[in-house]
Parts: sequence; C-alpha cells; structure tokens
Amino acid sequence: MSHAKFQDCIQACVACAVACSHCATECLKEEDVKMLAKCIQLDLECAAICRSAAELMSLGSGLSQELCRLCTRICNECAQECEKHAAMGMEHCKECAEMCRKCAAACEQMATAA
Amino acid sequence: MSHAKFQDCIQACVACAVACSHCATECLKEEDVKMLAKCIQLDLECAAICRSAAELMSLGSGLSQELCRLCTRICNECAQECEKHAAMGMEHCKECAEMCRKCAAACEQMATAA
Amino acid sequence: MSHAKFQDCIQACVACAVACSHCATECLKEEDVKMLAKCIQLDLECAAICRSAAELMSLGSGLSQELCRLCTRICNECAQECEKHAAMGMEHCKECAEMCRKCAAACEQMATAA
Amino acid sequence: MSHAKFQDCIQACVACAVACSHCATECLKEEDVKMLAKCIQLDLECAAICRSAAELMSLGSGLSQELCRLCTRICNECAQECEKHAAMGMEHCKECAEMCRKCAAACEQMATAA
Repeated sequence: MSHAKFQDCIQACVACAVACSHCATECLKEEDVKMLAKCIQLDLECAAICRSAAELMSLGSGLSQELCRLCTRICNECAQECEKHAAMGMEHCKECAEMCRKCAAACEQMATAA
Repeated sequence: MSHAKFQDCIQACVACAVACSHCATECLKEEDVKMLAKCIQLDLECAAICRSAAELMSLGSGLSQELCRLCTRICNECAQECEKHAAMGMEHCKECAEMCRKCAAACEQMATAA
Repeated sequence: MSHAKFQDCIQACVACAVACSHCATECLKEEDVKMLAKCIQLDLECAAICRSAAELMSLGSGLSQELCRLCTRICNECAQECEKHAAMGMEHCKECAEMCRKCAAACEQMATAA
Repeated sequence: MSHAKFQDCIQACVACAVACSHCATECLKEEDVKMLAKCIQLDLECAAICRSAAELMSLGSGLSQELCRLCTRICNECAQECEKHAAMGMEHCKECAEMCRKCAAACEQMATAA
C-alpha cells in the first residue's frame, strides 16, 4: 500500500492522538476528576497507539494494518467512555469522541484493505 | 496559552513528523542512499522532536515554547538538506522541505509568543 | 559525544519515562484523584520529554544536550510534586520521584558536558 | 497483569528501541549504506513498536499483550537482518540483533501469559 493511500488514516490517527492528549489534560482540570479517571486512562492508551500507528504508516511498515486493527479497538473503547461525559456537556470529551470514532473508522478500513 | 492557539502549530508539527518519516523511508529506497545519509539522519531527528512538540502542546505543557524553539532549529536544518535533493527532483525531499519550513515558521511564532 | 557516553543518560531517561507513565496510571486508581491531578499532568509531560530525549540521544543528535536541559527542568518539577505524595505513603510517587531525580541529575551532567 | 510482571518486558523493549535507533544512525555512517537500507528501515519500524509497547505496558494497558505479539514479529525480522551484517563484523548490528532477540523472547512470553 502506498503512502498516499495511508494519508487519510495517518491524518485521522494524529488528530485522534492530539484530541486524546488534550482531553486527558482538560479532564485533569475538571472538578470531579475521579469520575473521569477511566476516561483519562483510555485517552493515554489511545494516544500512544495512535501516535505509533501514524509513525508506522508514515514509514510504510508492513505491520501497519495489524497496528490499525488494535487502534480501532482502543479508539472505540475511548470514544464510548468519552461519549458518556460528552452527553453531560464536556466539550473536550465530545471532540475527543468524534476524533476517536473517525479514527476507528479510518483504521478499520486500513486494517481490512486488500 | 490555550489549546486553540496551539492548534496551528500542533498541525504543522504532526504534518512535519509524518513527512520526515516518509522521506526517510523513501530515501532508503533510492539508488544512491549514501548521498542521502545525512538527509535520513536529519529526518529521524526532526520527526522525533516534532512528535514530542506536538505531544507537549496537546498537553498544554509550560515547556511547549522551549521545545518549539528546538523544533525550529532542527526543522530548518532538515529543510536545508532536503532542498538540495528536491532541486535534483526528489519528490519526497521536496514535500519534506516544505513541511519543515512551515513547521519552523509555526514553531518560531509559538516560541516567541507572549 | 559518543553513544557510549550517552548510555547512562539514556537509561535514566527511559527508566524515568516508564516510572512517570506508571505513576500516572496508578494515581488514576487512587481514591483522591483530584489531589493528584497536578502530579498526573507532570507525569505525562515528563514522560513525553524523557522518551524524546532518549530517542534523540540514541540517534546521536546534536540537539541532545539542549533537550536534556529541558528534561532536567521537568524532571525536577515532577519530582517535587511526587515527593509530596511520597511523604503521604504513595509508593508509585516515591518510585517516580526517585527516577525523576536520577534523570534530572544525569541530564544535567549531559547538558553541561563539553 | 501487574506493572511488576511487566517490568522485564518493558526493560527489554526500551533497550531494544535504543539499540535499533542507534543501529540506524550507525548504519547511516557506514561506507556501503545501500547494503544496509533494509536494516535501517527495520530498525525504524522496530524502534517505533518497541517504544509503543513499553509505553502501553507502563500504562498497564489491556492491549499490551496484543502489541507485544506484533513486537515479537518485528523484533525477529529486524534481528534476522542485523545478524547478516553482524556476521560481517558490524558491531552495532551485532548489539542490535542481540537486543532484538531478547525483546522478541520477552514479548512472546508476555503475549502468551495467562
């Protein structure tokens, strides 16, 4: 698969990593951090995988698809958690959930491409 | 400084990191890799700093400006090397040089912002 | 400076990054997460800088010393915060503070080496 | 699985990432870089996955085992390539191959742990 074909997925991964790191740091400023602990944890895991997937795809690695498969899973898990808080009005969680869902979709497409 | 203000610089950094990693891997496929050794080395250093700067800014870190100052330096150095090969027709070096120059400018603005 | 000379500092940085990420995740499991919010934030920033410093040194980058200078600062800041909670019996903060102090010392030596 | 159980595998991953980045930069200084292009490429992919696996394990992520499975594969692939050059006397490839084999073994154990 070419770098060009990877481009959309790379963009989705880096945008998701940025949103997750940002969400984590904003969650830490909220009044009820305890309630957001799981969200922060998933943000950190998701950001780490997304950064790694973006790097591997940029390098045109043969492992990109397998990493994207893992990325889809953690992105959906993180989105699901963020969506709970988005529903309560937390803007950073809303933005993060959207980026996670987009990234999950892009990574799934990448993972299953021939 | 807010996450929103960081956004342009973060985008420039992640785009530069992707272009640098991609340039490195494309350089490794060229006939005369030896001539591109310095370019590959700078690509790797630049990608590492850019990824780190993007992460720190996403976290809203107080060290973001200082890291952006380093980022400007390595981006300009990498751009200068890539431009030599861009002039010889290497597309990946041309694209990388452009991303590096944009990132250097964005990081300089960030580093000197009040 | 040679890779061999970098070795101790690289080790200190990677150990510190691991301790910081681990401290963040353990803090998130504590009863009073709110009290630990600043600690978690500094853990994340410190881990990001340490990983980056280790990568740059592994690459033998000319920017290693400057990055180590930033690393010393964030390590000391993170250590100071962790030490408060270490005094209250939190083992992960105690371990993290120790790794941060070691890393700050190693990075300072690196940053000021001729 | 606890952080303590992850410790050996984390150490193997960070040591491997450092060795791979170092091997890449040393390969770039060799006379015949062309011959080492595949080695450099695998070094970069392996370093990226190893850093990511170490970060995920430090965070105690539930995806650690799956990432370790990918890590085993790229480590063995990188070791196989490095061993060719190690046999020709390249010290950085010899060291890198050893770290890769150790990391592959540690990651395999992690990936298959109950």
